[in-house]
Amino acid sequence: MNVEKQLAYIKEQTMKKNAYGYVSGLIGWDSAATNSPKMGYDKKYQYAGILAGEEYKITTDPALKMAVLEAAQSMADIEDVRDRAMVREWKKTIERMEKIPKEEYTAYVELLGKSEMVWETAKEENDFDSFKTYYQQIFDYQKKFAEYYGYEGHPYNALLEDFEPGMTVEKLDIFFKELREEVVPLLKQIIKAKAANPEAFAFINRPVAKDKQDQFSRQLLNHIKYDLERGVLAESEHPFTNGLTQHDVRVTTHYVEDNFASAIFSTTHEGGHGIYEQQQDETLEDRGLRNGASAAIHESQSRMYENIFGRSIEFWKPLYPEMQSLFGDALTDVDLESYHRAINMVEASLVRVDADELTYPLHIMVRYELEKALLEGKIAIDDLSKAWNEKMVEYLGIEPPSHSLGVLQDVHWAAGLVGYFPSYALGNAYAAQILHYMKKDIDVFGDLEKGNFERIHKWLGEKIHQHGLVYLPEELIERATGESFNPKYYVRYLKEKFGEVYNLA
Amino acid sequence: MNVEKQLAYIKEQTMKKNAYGYVSGLIGWDSAATNSPKMGYDKKYQYAGILAGEEYKITTDPALKMAVLEAAQSMADIEDVRDRAMVREWKKTIERMEKIPKEEYTAYVELLGKSEMVWETAKEENDFDSFKTYYQQIFDYQKKFAEYYGYEGHPYNALLEDFEPGMTVEKLDIFFKELREEVVPLLKQIIKAKAANPEAFAFINRPVAKDKQDQFSRQLLNHIKYDLERGVLAESEHPFTNGLTQHDVRVTTHYVEDNFASAIFSTTHEGGHGIYEQQQDETLEDRGLRNGASAAIHESQSRMYENIFGRSIEFWKPLYPEMQSLFGDALTDVDLESYHRAINMVEASLVRVDADELTYPLHIMVRYELEKALLEGKIAIDDLSKAWNEKMVEYLGIEPPSHSLGVLQDVHWAAGLVGYFPSYALGNAYAAQILHYMKKDIDVFGDLEKGNFERIHKWLGEKIHQHGLVYLPEELIERATGESFNPKYYVRYLKEKFGEVYNLA
Repeated sequence: MNVEKQLAYIKEQTMKKNAYGYVSGLIGWDSAATNSPKMGYDKKYQYAGILAGEEYKITTDPALKMAVLEAAQSMADIEDVRDRAMVREWKKTIERMEKIPKEEYTAYVELLGKSEMVWETAKEENDFDSFKTYYQQIFDYQKKFAEYYGYEGHPYNALLEDFEPGMTVEKLDIFFKELREEVVPLLKQIIKAKAANPEAFAFINRPVAKDKQDQFSRQLLNHIKYDLERGVLAESEHPFTNGLTQHDVRVTTHYVEDNFASAIFSTTHEGGHGIYEQQQDETLEDRGLRNGASAAIHESQSRMYENIFGRSIEFWKPLYPEMQSLFGDALTDVDLESYHRAINMVEASLVRVDADELTYPLHIMVRYELEKALLEGKIAIDDLSKAWNEKMVEYLGIEPPSHSLGVLQDVHWAAGLVGYFPSYALGNAYAAQILHYMKKDIDVFGDLEKGNFERIHKWLGEKIHQHGLVYLPEELIERATGESFNPKYYVRYLKEKFGEVYNLA
Repeated sequence: MNVEKQLAYIKEQTMKKNAYGYVSGLIGWDSAATNSPKMGYDKKYQYAGILAGEEYKITTDPALKMAVLEAAQSMADIEDVRDRAMVREWKKTIERMEKIPKEEYTAYVELLGKSEMVWETAKEENDFDSFKTYYQQIFDYQKKFAEYYGYEGHPYNALLEDFEPGMTVEKLDIFFKELREEVVPLLKQIIKAKAANPEAFAFINRPVAKDKQDQFSRQLLNHIKYDLERGVLAESEHPFTNGLTQHDVRVTTHYVEDNFASAIFSTTHEGGHGIYEQQQDETLEDRGLRNGASAAIHESQSRMYENIFGRSIEFWKPLYPEMQSLFGDALTDVDLESYHRAINMVEASLVRVDADELTYPLHIMVRYELEKALLEGKIAIDDLSKAWNEKMVEYLGIEPPSHSLGVLQDVHWAAGLVGYFPSYALGNAYAAQILHYMKKDIDVFGDLEKGNFERIHKWLGEKIHQHGLVYLPEELIERATGESFNPKYYVRYLKEKFGEVYNLA
């Protein structure tokens, strides 16, 4: 086969894989974002399993493997960078899959199936002991998998490859060292400086009817240029983005009557994810490159819209009067400045998903350090909950009163996602670096103040969004900003922003 | 392979086919009953096409064919009637598929793809001429297919097999003769007897807010024992039922603000379809026997709930006060008897889907006679619109003023559904026959008057619903009622009911 034929065959199989991906996305959407009956779940998941088996056959098709490996050897003859990326991604998928013996992988998948269910009960019942054996087995598998995959430096690098290709422990250690040295003291300073009167922000829990929140969420999405004609806004228990196809990128939010800010920031967060996918180049879907460069790059866009834009005072200048008039009594006596301070309240708290912009990365640091230590064998699963609590005290100054509010709070480890957590913090840090360079080209906060997203939309579209998975995260960041990943922009952003909000010297 | 192994293999392939069926159902639901973005349709249908290709591979798998044919030869050794039905259905599917040369079938499917689009425009623009060539080609194909399939008696019998297995022109002719001789004169009598004042029923177009109609639709579904915990009620342009799985049978309705009765009868109609699927035996899905015995049997259940129950005065005795209090001003000055007469108004009208209970089968008769004549070559496509109009005058006494309100009104022929129309009228007739025998066992209208669906639900469940596609329609009707299909019950039901409503001698 010549390289054209190889590419044509790979594209054909990619489209087939896309079709199964579409279906599994739609099944997920139907379960989480519509009122589909729970009684139907058994059969639904039975069918989803059958289809996953069919999809697996594509990935393990020997003809595909041959086409991919041969094409990979002729990379120099492939002119189109998107085709090269397609071959690169398939090669990685096939090679990584082949490195894990099939029986071990099957046993592992079965373990995860049970593990998630056991975790749910364990969390509910604050029962760390009953879950320990799963942690043990999952981390044992992960250690073994790291050896199978192979790595340079730290075994954790082998796992990072699944989530943030090119990222390493060596780089992450520098990143988290900055956070430890700069953000931990900043938090202590803020806690000391905080106004004695939390009553001042009680308005944030005034009730607002859900239909008004829904209406405002739609206004918000329009405002930031998420395209509702090529997407859907629905409600779900946990907000998420589901890019079914290029022109059908759906987002959800969650309305809480006495916490209207919850939906606002879920909507802007998911809206950011959604805009990223809506702006990817149309030709990427057929090459399997449409869902973004990595979890952290995706997260950089959601955090950009949620935090950097969405929690700035400039963003709210044009929007706040609209929200006031829509929400009526809830906000008539609250001025913009009070609202802005309220949505930037910093507080050391126990649960990652509820954390504010400043303390959030410290929660990630706890997890990253524990994952590393577990892989190195420096701590035992028996001591995991204790170690968690000690780090919470060290970085956030508070101690979880239970396993449920401590080590058992996240599903990630129970779902086998070891090495994923850093993506969240990296997302924030990428966003800050991108912001720094975007500000060199356009007056970002001036535009926010005018309620004009035209230039921001275009800049992010050109520099980040359109490229999808054509470039790996490292190269994408370097192309967009002219320098490789540099955590100093993030630390500087946090210090400047919260210094200002809290009037620190 | 022994017969157990054959059955096991067939079941495995059946489940795989079910999985693809599930997906295509879900994709259909997502398009019609949610606000999924139109911009995403292109890709969605591209993926649906890829998956349909994968599904086709199951049906054409030589190993499946061998297992089915071998099992069919050992029918006597298969103890379970459900397994025998599974083998019977696969055998029919495979054999019918093989009778059509593949290239012809592919060309035909492509023709239909275009034809539906052209039909839509032709209907909009009242342009019969531009659509004639499609009618010609589609009916030519159907004639050829009938020859490929083979038949006894009339070629139409070969086509009926797809929709109402066992039904024949010979039986249908007797059925429609009864309608022609009994219902056509009855309609003329009613039109003569009708009160001169149509203003008396003007209340039926008073506005009722959609959310109230939605609330009442849910009450109605609960009332008739459709299980909302194992289904969904949503809104769509054209109401439909979508049985995704045994415990996830979804229905839709359509709310029109100034025509509240529209949603009421759509909801009871689809509710009837839904109840049929919800009550099928749990073990049928894995054998591919879960979607009912035939289109006409399915329709018999929807018409039972919509017309026989839903348009009876007994049904409304307990419900009408509830509806009055919910709909407020719209009904406060309307008594039950006026409402009952309004929902049973008979009027010769042009459009099948808007027809009342009495004139509905006459619309079907027009289509049936034309289909037969076309297959026999007794009329030419050029004369089809004229022939349609003549029959409308003969049976309903009115002449369509346009092709759009005449021959172009239904999508069926454009979609290749030749031989389907009789199912609608048969559904009504089956329902009347079933009712006759149900009344021997239980006081149907007494129960309706009490608002008690327990016994009706159980009777229909045992006699009809649970059996799914285990028995062919003919056998099912005979088992449920003790006699084979007999149109006299339907004609008698119509004469009695409308004689009473219109006080005919």
